[in-house]
Amino acid sequence: MRDVAIVGVGMTPFGELWESSLRDLFVDAASLALRDAGADHLDAIYVGNMAGGQLVGQEHLGPLMADQLGMRGVPSTRVESACASGGAALRAAFFEVASGASDLVLASGVEKMNDGADVTGVLATAADQEAEVYHGITFPGLYAMIARAHMAAHGTTLEDLAAVSVKNHRHGALNPKAQFKQEVTAEQVMASSMVADPLRLLHCSPVSDGAAAVLLCPLDRAAEFCDKPVKIRASGMATSAMALADRHDPAFLDAVHLAGNRAFDMGKVGPRDIDVAEVHDCFAIAELCVLEALCFTERGLAGEATRAGETTLGGRIPINTSGGLKSKGHPVGATGVAQVIEIVEQLRGEAGARQVKDAVVGLTQNMGGSGASAVVHIFERV
Amino acid sequence: MRDVAIVGVGMTPFGELWESSLRDLFVDAASLALRDAGADHLDAIYVGNMAGGQLVGQEHLGPLMADQLGMRGVPSTRVESACASGGAALRAAFFEVASGASDLVLASGVEKMNDGADVTGVLATAADQEAEVYHGITFPGLYAMIARAHMAAHGTTLEDLAAVSVKNHRHGALNPKAQFKQEVTAEQVMASSMVADPLRLLHCSPVSDGAAAVLLCPLDRAAEFCDKPVKIRASGMATSAMALADRHDPAFLDAVHLAGNRAFDMGKVGPRDIDVAEVHDCFAIAELCVLEALCFTERGLAGEATRAGETTLGGRIPINTSGGLKSKGHPVGATGVAQVIEIVEQLRGEAGARQVKDAVVGLTQNMGGSGASAVVHIFERV
Repeated sequence: MRDVAIVGVGMTPFGELWESSLRDLFVDAASLALRDAGADHLDAIYVGNMAGGQLVGQEHLGPLMADQLGMRGVPSTRVESACASGGAALRAAFFEVASGASDLVLASGVEKMNDGADVTGVLATAADQEAEVYHGITFPGLYAMIARAHMAAHGTTLEDLAAVSVKNHRHGALNPKAQFKQEVTAEQVMASSMVADPLRLLHCSPVSDGAAAVLLCPLDRAAEFCDKPVKIRASGMATSAMALADRHDPAFLDAVHLAGNRAFDMGKVGPRDIDVAEVHDCFAIAELCVLEALCFTERGLAGEATRAGETTLGGRIPINTSGGLKSKGHPVGATGVAQVIEIVEQLRGEAGARQVKDAVVGLTQNMGGSGASAVVHIFERV
Repeated sequence: MRDVAIVGVGMTPFGELWESSLRDLFVDAASLALRDAGADHLDAIYVGNMAGGQLVGQEHLGPLMADQLGMRGVPSTRVESACASGGAALRAAFFEVASGASDLVLASGVEKMNDGADVTGVLATAADQEAEVYHGITFPGLYAMIARAHMAAHGTTLEDLAAVSVKNHRHGALNPKAQFKQEVTAEQVMASSMVADPLRLLHCSPVSDGAAAVLLCPLDRAAEFCDKPVKIRASGMATSAMALADRHDPAFLDAVHLAGNRAFDMGKVGPRDIDVAEVHDCFAIAELCVLEALCFTERGLAGEATRAGETTLGGRIPINTSGGLKSKGHPVGATGVAQVIEIVEQLRGEAGARQVKDAVVGLTQNMGGSGASAVVHIFERV
């Protein structure tokens, strides 16, 4: 396999973007990534998107987005793995460059969620239709069950859950691209509207529009496009049962654990080597489960570590310096790529007020559904 | 890049399969492919599917299908490029094996179209939502316009169009997996119900359920799994404008031409070297346009060549020996993979009554929408 680098990044702000259509969002992000690298052509495009068909009546995003970008003719394919679509798009692009088939490949993600569809119902099509959705459950309920299982098994508290939201809003307040740029207190989190007991509104990521794109090329060509290339050191992916009830322990994200181990093995690093990570906090409980699945903390201790400040900027292992899905926003197809952009900016030393000092190795973790699919990438400053 | 071979194939019958769900279809096809190769594990799965979310309320097919197959944990990703989803899934699997990252990768496709959704409306989400669908057009109308443009430019006749259907039904009558196993006459085609002038019912592929899967591995490991491996000699992909009105010549499929040229260049072969091909005859006019775009005939002469029998079994270049989309059926996500299975069976010499004598090099051409995305693969008996 050839070594692969990221040499350009671009993203839209995340939020309720009423003035921009799905295609506008993609073009904005992709153009910024091309400009960042000074690139004027592409060999291929991957578009991560969960539900363009259901949300805005548009499947077949590959050719549409290539054409809208002024790249008619370029091979362009949509990749979908629910909320891990962006991570899966990056992985497909990585293989295409690593194989030697192509040099300049754009990995992107986009979602337009605020245009009127029943978003909660659409998102539920990422759960098991026969075993779960048919009976009426949607994702807030599924993650509430994960939270209850975690509380029962490990003594995790409402204060632990609130600490995740407080931290991520504190980080997001420093991110100009974030949907919510204000801090929240633990009291505000615990007094917000109940969504699915024990999860309240401020434990939940929002409904967002947005797009993100990164440009990949062989590491040995990176200097043509970028002074500060970031190497993709490893890509790990795994799956688990779709239905929560089919898993051995609903409070343990086994696909995340397996994807993480695969990435750590491939990258020849361990959790202690990671300087900064972006993880999939679609709900506050998700961040705690992910920290444990990736062995950033021991099983059952992620809540305590969060309350102790270990995962905040300046802490032992800063998590979600971008604000995470909770504060930055969660346009589901774009999320996995936006996570990568935060890590690239950290490893370039260009994260401004969110900068983690001397960050050399970073990690992204993106997952679909209630964790049935998981993608982990490890990046390195070169 | 490593050389890659196909060492196992499996597909369901295509048709109105009321007793099988989306997941049943996938498991049936994938199990057959694994059994064909004698393989008991996988390194990765790609699932081609256009619209599971809209058709049966199920996105996120990667992990669902891995788990249903008994392969929980295995990386598994859905790839979508409308009716070219199967071809795009094969291409992604090809890159993953070629890169050296994985050895045993399943490329599959599945679609369940007969369960009650507005299929014509769902399929239309593969066209340009803003420029075409919003104004009320669907695919029969788009292909009718392509047909009218081809007739006006090249003198193509209604008899030419009927000859495609007659030939493909003749082939399909020999295929036990085909949805329609009966022959039709030109008179029957031209007397069938008008769908979108000049296209009649028997010019149109049907609404189908079905799945198909092929197992890839490095060529140097192929003998472990298969006595008659088939090498993937080339993969070419291209895009064009989504909206027909944005193309220079609506009667010329420029993405197909470009994808074909890329595959011919990569495979170091030309159209005259192809012994048998499966092409995307979603409507009769599509097969004629594809034959011209791939240079199997001169521009404007595909209708004449079809009426002269050049593309029938025993002719100069047999096209759609499986029966094609018209007669075999067209479960849109599965089609691109089923095309590959027909070519593999031809190159193995296992196509029975449909066998093309001494077939050594075969080609598949799969496209999405009105030709906005196109994937061409070339295969070789080794």
